[in-house]
Amino acid sequence: MTMTKPMHETLQKIVENAPGSKGAILMGFDGITVDQYVRPEFVDAMDIESMAMEFSFRFLELRDAAKSLEMGAISDITLKAEYGTVVVRVLSTEYFVAIILGDGTLMGKSRWLLRSNANALNSDLVNG
Amino acid sequence: MTMTKPMHETLQKIVENAPGSKGAILMGFDGITVDQYVRPEFVDAMDIESMAMEFSFRFLELRDAAKSLEMGAISDITLKAEYGTVVVRVLSTEYFVAIILGDGTLMGKSRWLLRSNANALNSDLVNG
Repeated sequence: MTMTKPMHETLQKIVENAPGSKGAILMGFDGITVDQYVRPEFVDAMDIESMAMEFSFRFLELRDAAKSLEMGAISDITLKAEYGTVVVRVLSTEYFVAIILGDGTLMGKSRWLLRSNANALNSDLVNG
Repeated sequence: MTMTKPMHETLQKIVENAPGSKGAILMGFDGITVDQYVRPEFVDAMDIESMAMEFSFRFLELRDAAKSLEMGAISDITLKAEYGTVVVRVLSTEYFVAIILGDGTLMGKSRWLLRSNANALNSDLVNG
């Protein structure tokens, strides 16, 4: 038995390496959070859980739409808005990981970080 | 009075310059098409109108979610799926332009083409 929390550490590592990022969250498409990491300076200002929850159901609908259009499974979703950007990587039919970026941030590195850590997060989900 | 259709030409130009693209469509968030251009070789295989219509209502919901989360207006949405990618640029509160890319295509240039032609398309929408 180990006391380390590899999933939390992975989320923290993603956030710390993503320029302009505020936090990252691993959530089920049912809107239930598995784990999250928010930069200390944004913990009071941002409710990443409510944010991801608000989007999770919409992501589910996008996923179903893509499937019905024979586009196959959605792997990535990005939403760029005036005051922030959400970059999402779908981990499985049940889970996704999302990173929240501040205004005017380039999303390329965040997307890459989510992709390159997807396997690690997935294996934490499976092995607990 | 002119017989040229600048909006259609803009969509065609976007598609022809976007590597791996199949077609582009300018649509209202109510699912009604303004104009579209599909590469001749995909006209029979792809119903870009049904595709965009299926997503338009979901985009509207994403837009409302972002607004309620105080993220401001959404400007860009990208969806990457197994067999294709949809890159969307929001033109106004009423209209968006979307480009459909084939499997395995890099989306960067398409996103840039939509952005750099957004003003031209918007002015066509206003001036008719």
